[in-house]
Amino acid sequence: MLPQTRAQQRLLIKGGKVVNDDVSVVADVYVEDGVVQQVGPNINPEPSAGLVVLDATNKLVIPGGIDTHTHMEFPFMGSRSKDDFFTGTKAAIAGGTTMIIDFAIPQKGCSLIEAFDTWKSWADPKVCCDYSLHVAVTWWSNKVKQEMESLVQNKGVNSFKMFMAYKDVYMVNDEELYEAFFCCKELGAVAQVHAENGELIAQGAKKMLAMGITGPEGHELCRPEEVEAEATQRAVTIANALNCPLYVVHVMSKSSAKVISNARREGKVVFGEPIAASLGTDGTNYWNKDWAHAAAYVMGPPLRPDPSTPGFLMNLLANGDLSVTGTDNCTFDICQKALGKDDFTKIPNGVNGVEDRMSVIWEKGVHSGKMDENRFVAVTSTNAAKIFNLYPKKGRIAVGSDADIVVWDPEATRTISAKTHHQANDCNIFEGMVCHGVPVVTVSRGKVVYEGGVFNVTAGEGKYVSRPPFPPYVYQRVRQREQVCQPVPVKRAPYTGTVAGAPVTQK
Amino acid sequence: MLPQTRAQQRLLIKGGKVVNDDVSVVADVYVEDGVVQQVGPNINPEPSAGLVVLDATNKLVIPGGIDTHTHMEFPFMGSRSKDDFFTGTKAAIAGGTTMIIDFAIPQKGCSLIEAFDTWKSWADPKVCCDYSLHVAVTWWSNKVKQEMESLVQNKGVNSFKMFMAYKDVYMVNDEELYEAFFCCKELGAVAQVHAENGELIAQGAKKMLAMGITGPEGHELCRPEEVEAEATQRAVTIANALNCPLYVVHVMSKSSAKVISNARREGKVVFGEPIAASLGTDGTNYWNKDWAHAAAYVMGPPLRPDPSTPGFLMNLLANGDLSVTGTDNCTFDICQKALGKDDFTKIPNGVNGVEDRMSVIWEKGVHSGKMDENRFVAVTSTNAAKIFNLYPKKGRIAVGSDADIVVWDPEATRTISAKTHHQANDCNIFEGMVCHGVPVVTVSRGKVVYEGGVFNVTAGEGKYVSRPPFPPYVYQRVRQREQVCQPVPVKRAPYTGTVAGAPVTQK
Amino acid sequence: MLPQTRAQQRLLIKGGKVVNDDVSVVADVYVEDGVVQQVGPNINPEPSAGLVVLDATNKLVIPGGIDTHTHMEFPFMGSRSKDDFFTGTKAAIAGGTTMIIDFAIPQKGCSLIEAFDTWKSWADPKVCCDYSLHVAVTWWSNKVKQEMESLVQNKGVNSFKMFMAYKDVYMVNDEELYEAFFCCKELGAVAQVHAENGELIAQGAKKMLAMGITGPEGHELCRPEEVEAEATQRAVTIANALNCPLYVVHVMSKSSAKVISNARREGKVVFGEPIAASLGTDGTNYWNKDWAHAAAYVMGPPLRPDPSTPGFLMNLLANGDLSVTGTDNCTFDICQKALGKDDFTKIPNGVNGVEDRMSVIWEKGVHSGKMDENRFVAVTSTNAAKIFNLYPKKGRIAVGSDADIVVWDPEATRTISAKTHHQANDCNIFEGMVCHGVPVVTVSRGKVVYEGGVFNVTAGEGKYVSRPPFPPYVYQRVRQREQVCQPVPVKRAPYTGTVAGAPVTQK
Amino acid sequence: MLPQTRAQQRLLIKGGKVVNDDVSVVADVYVEDGVVQQVGPNINPEPSAGLVVLDATNKLVIPGGIDTHTHMEFPFMGSRSKDDFFTGTKAAIAGGTTMIIDFAIPQKGCSLIEAFDTWKSWADPKVCCDYSLHVAVTWWSNKVKQEMESLVQNKGVNSFKMFMAYKDVYMVNDEELYEAFFCCKELGAVAQVHAENGELIAQGAKKMLAMGITGPEGHELCRPEEVEAEATQRAVTIANALNCPLYVVHVMSKSSAKVISNARREGKVVFGEPIAASLGTDGTNYWNKDWAHAAAYVMGPPLRPDPSTPGFLMNLLANGDLSVTGTDNCTFDICQKALGKDDFTKIPNGVNGVEDRMSVIWEKGVHSGKMDENRFVAVTSTNAAKIFNLYPKKGRIAVGSDADIVVWDPEATRTISAKTHHQANDCNIFEGMVCHGVPVVTVSRGKVVYEGGVFNVTAGEGKYVSRPPFPPYVYQRVRQREQVCQPVPVKRAPYTGTVAGAPVTQK
Repeated sequence: MLPQTRAQQRLLIKGGKVVNDDVSVVADVYVEDGVVQQVGPNINPEPSAGLVVLDATNKLVIPGGIDTHTHMEFPFMGSRSKDDFFTGTKAAIAGGTTMIIDFAIPQKGCSLIEAFDTWKSWADPKVCCDYSLHVAVTWWSNKVKQEMESLVQNKGVNSFKMFMAYKDVYMVNDEELYEAFFCCKELGAVAQVHAENGELIAQGAKKMLAMGITGPEGHELCRPEEVEAEATQRAVTIANALNCPLYVVHVMSKSSAKVISNARREGKVVFGEPIAASLGTDGTNYWNKDWAHAAAYVMGPPLRPDPSTPGFLMNLLANGDLSVTGTDNCTFDICQKALGKDDFTKIPNGVNGVEDRMSVIWEKGVHSGKMDENRFVAVTSTNAAKIFNLYPKKGRIAVGSDADIVVWDPEATRTISAKTHHQANDCNIFEGMVCHGVPVVTVSRGKVVYEGGVFNVTAGEGKYVSRPPFPPYVYQRVRQREQVCQPVPVKRAPYTGTVAGAPVTQK
Repeated sequence: MLPQTRAQQRLLIKGGKVVNDDVSVVADVYVEDGVVQQVGPNINPEPSAGLVVLDATNKLVIPGGIDTHTHMEFPFMGSRSKDDFFTGTKAAIAGGTTMIIDFAIPQKGCSLIEAFDTWKSWADPKVCCDYSLHVAVTWWSNKVKQEMESLVQNKGVNSFKMFMAYKDVYMVNDEELYEAFFCCKELGAVAQVHAENGELIAQGAKKMLAMGITGPEGHELCRPEEVEAEATQRAVTIANALNCPLYVVHVMSKSSAKVISNARREGKVVFGEPIAASLGTDGTNYWNKDWAHAAAYVMGPPLRPDPSTPGFLMNLLANGDLSVTGTDNCTFDICQKALGKDDFTKIPNGVNGVEDRMSVIWEKGVHSGKMDENRFVAVTSTNAAKIFNLYPKKGRIAVGSDADIVVWDPEATRTISAKTHHQANDCNIFEGMVCHGVPVVTVSRGKVVYEGGVFNVTAGEGKYVSRPPFPPYVYQRVRQREQVCQPVPVKRAPYTGTVAGAPVTQK
Repeated sequence: MLPQTRAQQRLLIKGGKVVNDDVSVVADVYVEDGVVQQVGPNINPEPSAGLVVLDATNKLVIPGGIDTHTHMEFPFMGSRSKDDFFTGTKAAIAGGTTMIIDFAIPQKGCSLIEAFDTWKSWADPKVCCDYSLHVAVTWWSNKVKQEMESLVQNKGVNSFKMFMAYKDVYMVNDEELYEAFFCCKELGAVAQVHAENGELIAQGAKKMLAMGITGPEGHELCRPEEVEAEATQRAVTIANALNCPLYVVHVMSKSSAKVISNARREGKVVFGEPIAASLGTDGTNYWNKDWAHAAAYVMGPPLRPDPSTPGFLMNLLANGDLSVTGTDNCTFDICQKALGKDDFTKIPNGVNGVEDRMSVIWEKGVHSGKMDENRFVAVTSTNAAKIFNLYPKKGRIAVGSDADIVVWDPEATRTISAKTHHQANDCNIFEGMVCHGVPVVTVSRGKVVYEGGVFNVTAGEGKYVSRPPFPPYVYQRVRQREQVCQPVPVKRAPYTGTVAGAPVTQK
Repeated sequence: MLPQTRAQQRLLIKGGKVVNDDVSVVADVYVEDGVVQQVGPNINPEPSAGLVVLDATNKLVIPGGIDTHTHMEFPFMGSRSKDDFFTGTKAAIAGGTTMIIDFAIPQKGCSLIEAFDTWKSWADPKVCCDYSLHVAVTWWSNKVKQEMESLVQNKGVNSFKMFMAYKDVYMVNDEELYEAFFCCKELGAVAQVHAENGELIAQGAKKMLAMGITGPEGHELCRPEEVEAEATQRAVTIANALNCPLYVVHVMSKSSAKVISNARREGKVVFGEPIAASLGTDGTNYWNKDWAHAAAYVMGPPLRPDPSTPGFLMNLLANGDLSVTGTDNCTFDICQKALGKDDFTKIPNGVNGVEDRMSVIWEKGVHSGKMDENRFVAVTSTNAAKIFNLYPKKGRIAVGSDADIVVWDPEATRTISAKTHHQANDCNIFEGMVCHGVPVVTVSRGKVVYEGGVFNVTAGEGKYVSRPPFPPYVYQRVRQREQVCQPVPVKRAPYTGTVAGAPVTQK
């Protein structure tokens, strides 16, 4: 075990198998000033004094995970999510994740920049690892447009999320969506959507309550997966009309994933983000006889009752039809969930995941034989870095990269439990799952922040990471299409015949 | 040739092959009082005096066509469609169609009943064959709901169309659509949609004009087929959330047809109506160098530039994935079209079809080997009668059925041309198409109204046909599902734990 | 209850709802000489003496079921199926089925005509209802071809089945399949296939046994559904290369059904036959802890472990993607099944169904709301009659049709059980299923053969039904395509340049 | 221009944008001893004497292309392909390709090792760049199996191709395919298939000739794309039954590509290889009025008449559903093609591509906006290196990689023509195509072999590249599945009941 107070300037990780998204090689990794300096066999940095050496023999050395989707201390549905930026990032670290991207979400009519500043003010003093912020566009006006521009140019924001659900709260209509997508494309930002038809949810919820269905199962019944698939299809269509790249957050269903896969086959620039919850568990839990159990799984969009859903999504993630993974980590304890004890529409939406994502994906993805270790790195880290323009500083272990590194034991197992997890919450949707793949050591910007179950973190030590616009992974094709794929008018002689007289109007 | 003035009370069609949707048999057909009295071999009705005898040897004797979708004398886009209920129904008869269903379309905020009465007042004095009226729901209010009920109960209307396009004119939003579908299901009416995303059309049109694309090709470019498919998917999803049967008018594209086919495979009660135009021609015409030619094809949704579209739709029509055929007959002459000579958005939308539908489908469907003569009868007549609850009075040649009958020569050919057609218009989108399958005689309610090119019609002789609600073909399954497919609440002990305290609200 | 010895020449079924595949009407049905004479309201045939009257008030009057796929007293896998043509047809009658089509199956190298004669000699003295015989083509030679022709022209056979499975027993290879299909098309016969890849089954069985999997679950594991889908796709492709219509017997899986549905969408003439087993139960039974239970479900192709399979197939059957239903009734009792107690490959393949098919489809199809009563008639009777060219003598209640009629109580229920069924077997794969839809009276060719649980049958009273070639429902399109869809050579000037010299051959 | 005789030990490529499959960076590349020594900004290797410096400013520096599929000097169909290993590799170099993988193809009954040795003896003295050899399995026996093992263990072969077409020549049946796949999996080799149903081709060819269709259009008509898709589906199914990875060579059609894409979505380990021909041109050429033109495009499987095929394949290649690109380069001149002037079945099958592949893919893929430059590198080089276990020595520009490097001008254009190309053939299927993307300099193992149109090559200078078995990119998942995805027997009490008596046999 490491002493927890030393300053960690120089670090040598010895003998591990360095796994990047393209290839694995047994090599040492040498880190200085938070940056990888060398990767290769038999590195012996001088002087040896002050050098921290980690033995990674028989272990994997992987880029730290990037969780693309969290909501720490989020004020939502009359409550506030339990993990704040401290416990949330600490739990992330314990799970092998070294960067999160949270969402700043303004109320309708409110300033995006203020929301960004608010969230940043919450995060900065607390984060134990690096983070960044997506910003939500929950309404539309000229001011919103200007603020988007400012956020991109001055604040390092390159992604905006639009909600197609949460009617009257965050939901934007098709016209607003079109405008927001247009603006994203102009700015070089990634347009994200929460894809569910908010109107159908509102109607469905009324219907379920009227039928006497007030429990958590009503949450799924009022917004079955075709409600998600419809919105996904609509978002894809609107984005494509604008040649705007699209990123669909929290892909929860087979049908929505198929929409994304089909769009990609047709050449559309679309990325799908399944989450730990949709990859690791399913919606049968809503029918659990224990209300508290069932309520713990309530999130939007809901998990699906079809138990083949997680395997299906994992196949697409393995295959490349889906691209990255987040968690939508937004924890509420049972007392908070109980706000909706008599009415499922009042159960705060959200589940855990930030700590367990890596292990869940390893177990269900790699241990199961669906993907290899390199694809694991791609979907937990590299692709996120590429999409959000952080690559190769993040998402790769290579000379010049940030030393966000995890030593991963692929053979060890652990059992997920609320009793032992590091999140602030009192329940865990993966309770009891035995996972192969255990993070043994986590290194954040060159510092060993977690080793063998012991933390060495300081609140506020993480950094806000600016993300420049026009990520090439996303925008190269888009820009080329702007130039070469535009329609041109047919050249014709003008029409010279008679034109009909006075217009007719209906009585 | 028949004398054109006699009263035709008794009619014997001899020696033809009587083709219904299930089977073909050589038989005589005897008609009295406008109704089929006998079908069988060697009928010799007494007395022979006054008996009109038609020799149908080597010909087919088929149920008269039902055109599910026309707009006669429709005030639209600053003009009025050229075929009125007289020329329109006369042309129908010449083509082997003996019933049309037109649309009464109120302006937003206006009475549905008044629209119905208006359209009926236009039609009644002019129609040469039977007709009925769908009614459009272009806005929503309690009054609209009450009028729908009244139309169903008192006026014989069992179908309502909602527009998802024509923003600010006829378009309804998702909430209105949901309400209208709900009301249709309660009343036992068929919910119809014009499925295109009106928002995307509006934005696309602006974009095309801004790019200098003002010609008819802009009409298709601003609303490509995924704009149609998206709305179709949305309508299917909303209808299904309500267990409401859905009828998609004018299916114009492969992708929209696939949405319908897939929905049907999943057990949804959805019907698709391709039209003569989408089955017989394609959108490459919008790129024609002659403006007048290109403009003649402008309709909404547009024809598609993919030339494999008509064959694809015909395959699905043959196979049962699509159900019925109409025309969206809404003719404008070149001078009217020229209202949009400098701006495609001002070209009145509409094409011909009411006269040529039967021949076009025979040529492209039956002569091509895609469907047999029985399926031809199904898709041109029987299925429409079933869906709109007119079967077996319409749509079948059987004892007790209305004597709407066509003697059809499957081997004869004719060349479609504006020079020879009977519609009021000066152009024809099928110009030059050589069609096998020629109507030789048309009988409407027992009267020979057309024979060998000669009409024997009287304006106003056709009748308005009431259509009772809850067509069994559409609603049997729906009603059964209402009873057996409802979710039930999970039985649980009540939650008795603590509930979180005062609600949190975002600043 | 009816006296069981009277001669039943004249029969009146009063007050029922006559359900055909297109429409339902309340009407009386009058029968004489085994044929329907009248259908209509208030029939009062004279004289009333000798008239048998059945009260069908509040009941449905439907065409008797046609089971397209049975194997009575079939010598197979070292045993012989338990239901012979007597018990089998008696059970059929009890279940509302009035015609079966069995298979005459020659050994490789043996005469088709002899097989036909053998099977006929088994059936004729025993059958209690009408029947017909498909003939299997299990090998290929010129003689086989000549016998096929003879069977079509002299024996009333219009369908031949080819096995793609049962390697070294019945399996034909692609070349033989091609020849057989070609011959079918020339003769106007329906080409049927048992679609499974026999090579993969053989290899898979070896593999499972080698892994120590000897129980019934090995039966499914060695031939998972993609083995069925592959062969279905291959058969479709080969048939289509010949413009030969194809009929896929016992569709057991979602993926095979999709292949068929997709082929139909592309315009191919393909029919799919799910069976009572695949519509009513599933392959999870192979994992039952009780060997006898698991073995009872062994049939080829196997039922599928995915429990959503039956509902999926029923949706496609309701929708028209699948066309008809049989049973593959081929019963073996537990002692016979026990031939494979140590090796699943020796368990005789076969399940029951001939008695329960109608009730299972009513329960899972109609009562569930997936199809209406008219579609029920189509898939249990009418479509079979059309495909095998028996329509409208069979498959419809209309003047001139055979009086194969069932009085059906849609509201009554019965519980399926081996204890109460009329088949010879000691187990029933639907054991315990509660079904709405009970046959109250069964009429075969005008004779009441079953009423209220009491039989009035005589062995040998059923008739062999000849089936003429070129069923229009199948062959109209095919013949038209032969004429209009042939490729033509490109007209070119001959090549006049140099031609390469002596050929090169590889060492 | 470079002097052509100098020894090129040390090379510096300055100022270019180094494009790997994951990212592009402006950097210098320093090469010594044929291997990349440094990649980074401002490299100044000492001594400068003897250092060759290439200025790559405003150019891309990309890994040399790997053509996965060539047939140089192949004795085939009575002729021998015109490009031998000298002209073929020289042309490759001119086009930016620095490695080819050819096929050693034994006759049925002949030794695989001898074939390998023969091909190697042809290649070694002639190749101008690195190469390797796939080996075909054209028949099956124990000896074949042993030779496969020996080739893998002693000769550096890790891929075997099986033909499902060329009946009686190279075709193997399903049983042989199963055995070959099994053997591949055991050895850790990549199983490749030529996927077409050889039986249908043979029958189709006879049919076409019988119909008088003797020209090149008959080549496509006798083997339409469903013949390819069927075999692809079959190969996928057989491979999957064995958990054997599959590589489908020359994907030519939309339907075959869909089969592959769908298999990948289901988690199967399948790779698809479209080729320059299928990505750059189409089968409408077979209908060209000039026989010589039409014949030039004859290859198997044929190009497809649907002109949307190339764009469709490119979309899937961009998206990741297809993985790598080859050419099937197998050139025959017009005199050779003329062997089939009166009978298309005798036209030697084969087209060019080895020189133009990179430019065609750049033009149709990158310039069109379908993929970015990084994906271009992936599909022309990196993925091939990964699949065939050469990565990262080949397929990447990184320290330690082989210096197979191309300086690529993305803005320059060239017009493809037989008049200017470097292949031995007198025609070019891309004649007249204007391509953006021009290779300016080609470096093979650190030597500048082509610069500004001038070659500096020596026959035999290229090296045979051994490929070790079990490529991790292919086999990691496969091996894991072997361990965790095996079925287990159900634990049951033994059956203790009666077993049926003496077996029944059919007469």
